[in-house]
Amino acid sequence: MADDIAHRLPLPTMRWNAWGVAADQTHLSEGIKGLLAAALGVAGPPSASPAPDSVRLADSLVGEADLAAFAEIVGAEHVSAEPGDRLPRAGGKSTPDLLRRKQEEQDAPDAVVLPGDEGEVAAVLAYCEEAGIAVVPFGGGTSVVGGLDPVRGGSRAVVALDLRRFDKLVALDEVSQLATLQAGLTGPQAEELLGGRGYRLGHYPQSFQFATIGGFAAARSSGQASSGHGRFDEMVVGLTVVAPRGTLVLGRAQKSAAGPDLRQVFLGSEGVFGVITEVVVRVRPKPASVRRQAWRFPDFASGQTALRVVAQSGFRPTTMRLSDEMETGVNLATTAKIGDGDSPGGALSVTTFEGPEDETAAFAELTATAFRAAGGTELGPALADSWDAGRYSAPYLRDALLEAGAGCETLETAAIWSKVDEVKAAVTGALLEALAASGSKALVMCHISHVYPTSASLYFTVVYAMGADPIAQWAEVKRAASQAIVDSGATISHHHGVGADHRAWLADEDGEAGVAMLRAVKSALDPNGILNPGKLIP
Amino acid sequence: MADDIAHRLPLPTMRWNAWGVAADQTHLSEGIKGLLAAALGVAGPPSASPAPDSVRLADSLVGEADLAAFAEIVGAEHVSAEPGDRLPRAGGKSTPDLLRRKQEEQDAPDAVVLPGDEGEVAAVLAYCEEAGIAVVPFGGGTSVVGGLDPVRGGSRAVVALDLRRFDKLVALDEVSQLATLQAGLTGPQAEELLGGRGYRLGHYPQSFQFATIGGFAAARSSGQASSGHGRFDEMVVGLTVVAPRGTLVLGRAQKSAAGPDLRQVFLGSEGVFGVITEVVVRVRPKPASVRRQAWRFPDFASGQTALRVVAQSGFRPTTMRLSDEMETGVNLATTAKIGDGDSPGGALSVTTFEGPEDETAAFAELTATAFRAAGGTELGPALADSWDAGRYSAPYLRDALLEAGAGCETLETAAIWSKVDEVKAAVTGALLEALAASGSKALVMCHISHVYPTSASLYFTVVYAMGADPIAQWAEVKRAASQAIVDSGATISHHHGVGADHRAWLADEDGEAGVAMLRAVKSALDPNGILNPGKLIP
Repeated sequence: MADDIAHRLPLPTMRWNAWGVAADQTHLSEGIKGLLAAALGVAGPPSASPAPDSVRLADSLVGEADLAAFAEIVGAEHVSAEPGDRLPRAGGKSTPDLLRRKQEEQDAPDAVVLPGDEGEVAAVLAYCEEAGIAVVPFGGGTSVVGGLDPVRGGSRAVVALDLRRFDKLVALDEVSQLATLQAGLTGPQAEELLGGRGYRLGHYPQSFQFATIGGFAAARSSGQASSGHGRFDEMVVGLTVVAPRGTLVLGRAQKSAAGPDLRQVFLGSEGVFGVITEVVVRVRPKPASVRRQAWRFPDFASGQTALRVVAQSGFRPTTMRLSDEMETGVNLATTAKIGDGDSPGGALSVTTFEGPEDETAAFAELTATAFRAAGGTELGPALADSWDAGRYSAPYLRDALLEAGAGCETLETAAIWSKVDEVKAAVTGALLEALAASGSKALVMCHISHVYPTSASLYFTVVYAMGADPIAQWAEVKRAASQAIVDSGATISHHHGVGADHRAWLADEDGEAGVAMLRAVKSALDPNGILNPGKLIP
Repeated sequence: MADDIAHRLPLPTMRWNAWGVAADQTHLSEGIKGLLAAALGVAGPPSASPAPDSVRLADSLVGEADLAAFAEIVGAEHVSAEPGDRLPRAGGKSTPDLLRRKQEEQDAPDAVVLPGDEGEVAAVLAYCEEAGIAVVPFGGGTSVVGGLDPVRGGSRAVVALDLRRFDKLVALDEVSQLATLQAGLTGPQAEELLGGRGYRLGHYPQSFQFATIGGFAAARSSGQASSGHGRFDEMVVGLTVVAPRGTLVLGRAQKSAAGPDLRQVFLGSEGVFGVITEVVVRVRPKPASVRRQAWRFPDFASGQTALRVVAQSGFRPTTMRLSDEMETGVNLATTAKIGDGDSPGGALSVTTFEGPEDETAAFAELTATAFRAAGGTELGPALADSWDAGRYSAPYLRDALLEAGAGCETLETAAIWSKVDEVKAAVTGALLEALAASGSKALVMCHISHVYPTSASLYFTVVYAMGADPIAQWAEVKRAASQAIVDSGATISHHHGVGADHRAWLADEDGEAGVAMLRAVKSALDPNGILNPGKLIP
């Protein structure tokens, strides 16, 4: 259904029940299937997916009066309670989300509303507050932490507030290198609008093709070029947020001492405080030169030292990544073809340098000196080009694995450099142990893809034989991994966010007083709790 | 008094009624006094200062029971209500503060309490909350925005909570380049503790010699090396904060997507939410090489372009400054000897490069290329060395000017690059106009000392003939300048903070909903409003 059945509204770019678009979907070769069977005991799909038109969607809980009220605000052509509009906004794209999409009975928002400007957002929120309807802001639908679950909380219904009509480049300040972008623009849409003026966003998370500017901001996104360009929260200078109790326009300079930085409260707020409608964000001129270089390190430890030395220097590659021995061995480091091709062995690192010629030349040379000193061997650009070409492909592989009966999910964290080894071991151990307890063999791979002078991210990919109840199985494994993360002193998320799935661990991160602060802000801006219930705040 | 009369507690490093220490005080030459008379009509002190022992200090409003309770918590040797202890904590070091110190009747905190650990801070706050006593956290006493005013608010008394016993380097993680520093350490104390291990703080605001780690964090300090090393809020990875409603220990990695960044709520909180007792901050190895270079630009406009181009590149000098034609002309750019010596003319820029040899060599060359392209001429290192040698001297000059009857104050802001000229003109105009209206001629100088890819700071120094009521005169001039700042879209403070003096403009910056957020956080952590009343939150 969904793609196949009647819908009144434009659909999200992504398929309703898998990552991405059909044209880019992939399937495992028989050889890889054989390998999965031999190594992990993967024995085919645990249960057949329902035929698309047999999905039973929960009845909509909004009434005609609600729909009429929404239509009055946004226009009748921008409201729908059709199943074909509701289902594609039923959640994000975590593995549990994808597994739920295979069930015969599914839940979804009770309606979808597409406001066209800040005034309409404010009016929709006012109506929902009055009518007791919860609101889930919806951008690209790429959440992998349950951030879009259609939770009603104390409300009688829930609507998806789709920001897709916020699709304009409002202004480009070439002197300040600042673009004012509306929140519903996807990565490629923003890139195209900026590209016509000679600029680019410089923010390329794996969700780039589908996620939106507002989503990048609301989830504290970090892109593959974060080493050189910074995280999205570092690129944002201004924000417009519409909350039930007021509209905020924040940011008069990149940095200020005018009290607490309230932008940093909305960055990462995941729709629970207000709806981000517009972002003023740093953009960059298209680079005059691009250099890519792959490196082989004897092991993850020596590669980690190399990345740390560079991260603590004053220069920085645009992208700098390091795969561990396992990820390097199965070639997930550079392609989406797990297990295919020859691995260089050791621990593979990919660096890119983008910018003016004299700058990339100098930075590449300084990086090479540091990498060689740490035991790295230059491999030339080929594997780095291969990584670049496949940089958005990995999530498609997950669907192919699920189709073949292999569970696959990613999770991530960040820790200070001195704890990286301990955190990596703890999380890997927790994943393998929990999966073993569920009767499954597993393969755990890890890479560092975001570095800071004091800290690094750790991104884990786990592939395993799915059990008979794969949703329950992963829930327990995820619980164990999350507990291992917080117990080892790392953060519950470096860039995926909190959503519903990490919410139970936020009190470990922020403490009871910190949670009280979040609740206080929530009460000030959304006293009736209509915004994205069940997310972020424990 | 104060330095001269009985005190029980160790005193703040700074003199009670002037900037800094007596050994470094300076006086104007007769030539400069003549120039001030000729150019601005400065005609000597408007009124004599009272003899130190004739200051009448308001009676302390704490009673014996309060002092006994404090002594029970922190030890009798760490509590005092003696005038000699109260007066040195009576306020900060703005020009109005210094003018108030010359009055015969003065206010001060009713007592001073020196807790020794987080438990004692919590116990003092609990007692004060119960007893209806306000608390002003006190570090180095360097606030120039009224952040330390002994305001009682709704409480019956106010005590200064001096953090000076929080003076330890708790831990140094050389792998992560992170130091855990207690909040009461002054800049030089922290630098000495780190220096013994081969590291340094890398944070050198003009208040460095006296201000504390906790103050740097609470006020969102930005140092002279911010171009290369970042602001203090960018260096902080962890924070411990004791609030009346709980103690927070924040920060598991430099960056995270675990919801809003609560560290950025305490950074800039100026003591109104809690007492910052410990900071985990990025430190740097002592640099292997230091390069300094002065440049002359034909004018401020061309120099501004040069700084912007470098700020928008991937490399960065450690320090990068640009004085306007007026500041260059009177040599305030490089020395504390206003009006002395020969000026290079045009707009002077100072750059420093500190770090490994290959890095500073590469960055200096890249910077030189950009500066030459923008019309800059290398002047060699001499003027840059002179700036470095006098980097902490300027505030002493203000006391010398006040002594000679010339008003002198600084104020600052930041704006996006495309607005810099407009903001500079608006603030300069507002200062000159308001001073003219008060019957005074004035000299307004400006420099850029903190740059970002999208924004720059503007730092103004104004020298003028003091009127008959100098406190009222400056209050009106300051009001006009602050209004010009917010009206031109700039931030009310880039690094001085909000305190009492900028509080009226915070609603322009954050909006009513933003102020409501601050009030909500305040209510969650300090529901009885005992912490630093009258500061920050309008």
